[in-house]
Amino acid sequence: MRVTNAVLPGRSEPVTIVTEGGRITAIKESPGVGAPGEEVIDAAGRTVLPGLVNAHAHIDKTLHGGPWVSAPQVETVAERVAHERRHRDTHGLPSREYVASLVEAMVVAGTTHLRTHTDVDPGVGLRGITAVAEVARRYEGVIDIQQVAFPQGGLITNPGTLPLLRDAVEAGASVIGGLDPAGFDDAPNAHLEAVFDLAASTGTGIDIHLHDGGSLGAWEMGLIARMTREYDLGGRVAVSHAFGIAHPPTQAALLERFAEAGVALVSAAVYDAPVPPLRACAEHGVLLAGGTDGINDLWGPFGDGDMLRRAMLIAYRNSSRSDDELMLALDAVTTNAARVLGIEDHGLTVGGPADLVVVDARSAAEAVARVPGRDLVIRSGRVVARDGALVGAEGGNAPPH
Amino acid sequence: MRVTNAVLPGRSEPVTIVTEGGRITAIKESPGVGAPGEEVIDAAGRTVLPGLVNAHAHIDKTLHGGPWVSAPQVETVAERVAHERRHRDTHGLPSREYVASLVEAMVVAGTTHLRTHTDVDPGVGLRGITAVAEVARRYEGVIDIQQVAFPQGGLITNPGTLPLLRDAVEAGASVIGGLDPAGFDDAPNAHLEAVFDLAASTGTGIDIHLHDGGSLGAWEMGLIARMTREYDLGGRVAVSHAFGIAHPPTQAALLERFAEAGVALVSAAVYDAPVPPLRACAEHGVLLAGGTDGINDLWGPFGDGDMLRRAMLIAYRNSSRSDDELMLALDAVTTNAARVLGIEDHGLTVGGPADLVVVDARSAAEAVARVPGRDLVIRSGRVVARDGALVGAEGGNAPPH
Repeated sequence: MRVTNAVLPGRSEPVTIVTEGGRITAIKESPGVGAPGEEVIDAAGRTVLPGLVNAHAHIDKTLHGGPWVSAPQVETVAERVAHERRHRDTHGLPSREYVASLVEAMVVAGTTHLRTHTDVDPGVGLRGITAVAEVARRYEGVIDIQQVAFPQGGLITNPGTLPLLRDAVEAGASVIGGLDPAGFDDAPNAHLEAVFDLAASTGTGIDIHLHDGGSLGAWEMGLIARMTREYDLGGRVAVSHAFGIAHPPTQAALLERFAEAGVALVSAAVYDAPVPPLRACAEHGVLLAGGTDGINDLWGPFGDGDMLRRAMLIAYRNSSRSDDELMLALDAVTTNAARVLGIEDHGLTVGGPADLVVVDARSAAEAVARVPGRDLVIRSGRVVARDGALVGAEGGNAPPH
Repeated sequence: MRVTNAVLPGRSEPVTIVTEGGRITAIKESPGVGAPGEEVIDAAGRTVLPGLVNAHAHIDKTLHGGPWVSAPQVETVAERVAHERRHRDTHGLPSREYVASLVEAMVVAGTTHLRTHTDVDPGVGLRGITAVAEVARRYEGVIDIQQVAFPQGGLITNPGTLPLLRDAVEAGASVIGGLDPAGFDDAPNAHLEAVFDLAASTGTGIDIHLHDGGSLGAWEMGLIARMTREYDLGGRVAVSHAFGIAHPPTQAALLERFAEAGVALVSAAVYDAPVPPLRACAEHGVLLAGGTDGINDLWGPFGDGDMLRRAMLIAYRNSSRSDDELMLALDAVTTNAARVLGIEDHGLTVGGPADLVVVDARSAAEAVARVPGRDLVIRSGRVVARDGALVGAEGGNAPPH
C-alpha cells in the first residue's frame, strides 16, 4: 500500500507512506511509483495519525447497541459497584453482543489497541473474561484487546476474588487490576501485596484503579512506587485515574518517584475529577496515557469509544491551547498508551506497524482540537474502516461477523 | 408541516407535531391527515428537541473556516486579551467570512438562537458589531443573533470604551457586557456602575464575564445581585462563567440572592474551570444557561458550535448520570438559555415556535449523553438543515449566501 500526500504529526510537508507486510517500509517526500497492483490511497493533504490506543476501558460492562438504561445518580464508587452488582444480570451483562457493538465503534473511530478492565468476582466469575476473549478473537488483526483481571467488587473485602484473578490470567488476562486499596478495600498493604505477588508470580503487568484523591491517593501512589521498585516491575505498572496526582503538595515529588520507579499514569479525564498534568508528566518523564473509561454502562450513560475526542478532552481539561500542548494529548492516546500496553514500536516510523488513521485536518494539532471524523482506518496495511463503517477485506482476513 | 412518530422530551409515546405559520398548532397522539400539499416528515421514532440556544459565544473573534493558527499557551485573561490585541489585525479579524462560516456550523448543529459577546474598544471600534450585524441579517429567519457590546479590553482601565458601548447599542447591540470588574479592571464599583447605568438608560440587558473565582468572584456576584435589585433589572442580568459560584462557603447563599434578584448564570463548562451546579441552580430557581464560549480563535483552538455536545459537557462536568440529571443539561441549552435571551415561549408546546431538531436517539436523555448528529433542523416550520448541511428553501426565504 502507498498513501500519498499525507501530513504526519510534526512534519510540515506532505509525504508518501509505503507499507508492506503490515509494516511501514518507507516514508518519503516523492510519491514514487507503486508496484503493479499496489493499492494507492491519496490522502490529499489530510493528516495521517498513528493507530489510536485506548489504555483504559470496561467493555465487559457496556450496554452499547442495547436498550437505553438510565444510570443511578449516586455519589460513591461503592454505591456504583453495588448498583451494578444488583442489576447486571437483569440486563444480560456481560453481553457478547454489546461488547462487539462497542468494539466496532472503537475500530471505526481508529482504535487499533485496547486495554480493558474486566470484572472478576465470585458473582460473575470468569464470564466477563471469556466473553471479551471471544470478541477479541473475532476482531483479531483489526484491534488488539488486552484484558486486565479487575477486582471491581474488592479484593481483601471479597475473599473469593483472588483465586479467580489467577484463573483469569490462565484464561488470557495479561494484567492484574486493583481498586482503591485504601478507600474501597480498607486494606492498602494487603491489597497491593496480593496484586504485586500475583503479577510477579504470573509474569503479568499491574494496573490499579485509584479514585482515592488528595493526600490519601498521593500516599497510596507513593506505596505503589515503592513496591514497583521492590518487586522490580518497573515499566509494567500503571495507576489509572490517579485523582490524587492533582494533590499540589506532593505532585512534583510523586512524578519524580514514578519516573524513577517506572510507573505510568492513565487518565480518561472523567467527569469533574482531576486530570493529571500533561506538561508536568512529559517533563518528568512519566508516561501519561489516555483511555475512555466505561462507555454507556450501569455506571454512566456517556461515551462513544472515540479516543481522538478523548485526547481533545484531556487537552481541554489541561487548558492546553498551543499546538505543542495539543501534541502532548495526541501522544497520550498513541505512543504513550502503546507503551503502557507494552508496545514499543508504535508510531509512524519506518519499520513500525502500518496502522494509519486518515482525518480531515491540516495538522495533528488541528485534529486534536477539532476532532474530525475518521475518513480511513488502516490496520497492518489494510483498510479496516472507512467513513465510520467497517470495511470487509477481500484477502480472507475479513473483519468478522 | 406535520412531523409524525416524534419522541419529545419528557414523553414516552411518540406524537405528531403539526405546525402552521411558523408555530406549533397541535401535538397529538395520532398522526392524523395532513392538508393537501402539506409537508410530512416521518421522525420514525427518533427524538425531536426544541431549537438549541447558545447563550454565550464570541463569533466576532473566530477563525472558523480560515487558516489554522496556534493559540498561545498563556495563563491569564490579561495575557490572552493582550495577545489578541497584538494579532487580530494580522489575521483579518473580525472577518465576515469566518463569522458566517461559524454561524453556518451552528445552524446545521441545530442552533436557532445565539447571544454573542462582540469586542468593543477604541482599537476595533464598532467593526465587530457591524460585521456580526451584517452576518446576522444574512441569516435572518434561520438563526436569531443577539449581540452583547463587550468591553473585552477593559472599561475603567480603557477610557475610550464606555462611549463606544453606547454607540454599539445604537448600532444594534441589545445587551451591555462587562469583564472581571475586580480581577481585570481593578475597579469593581465603578465598572459595574458604568454597566448598570448604561443598561438602565438604554433599556438593554446586562451580561458580565466573571472569571474571577473563589471569594473574590463570590463577592462580585453578591454586588451584582444587590445592584440588579437597586436598578430594578431583575430578569435582565446574567453572569457568564461565574467560576466563583463554586466557592463552597457562599454557594447556597449566592444562589438564593440570585433567585431573589433575578440574576441568571451562563456556563460553557470551559477548560478546567468550575461549572455551576445544575441541580442546585434548578432547586434554587436560578436560570443556568449553556453556551460555547469562543470557538477556534486566538484564545484557544477548540470548539465546533455544537450546543448539544456542550450540554453533554455541562452534564459530564456536573457528574450527571441519571436521565433526570441529563434533562437539566438539556434545559440549560434550550428553555433556560432562551429565557436568558429574553425569549419566553421557547420549547415544544402548542403555540410555541416551530423550531425542531430531529436526532437519532430514543430519548432526550440519550441525545444529551450520546450527542448524535442532527438529522433535520427545522426553523419556524421550515427545514433549514439536513444531515450537517444547510438546505436551500423553495419559498423565497432561502438561507443566504
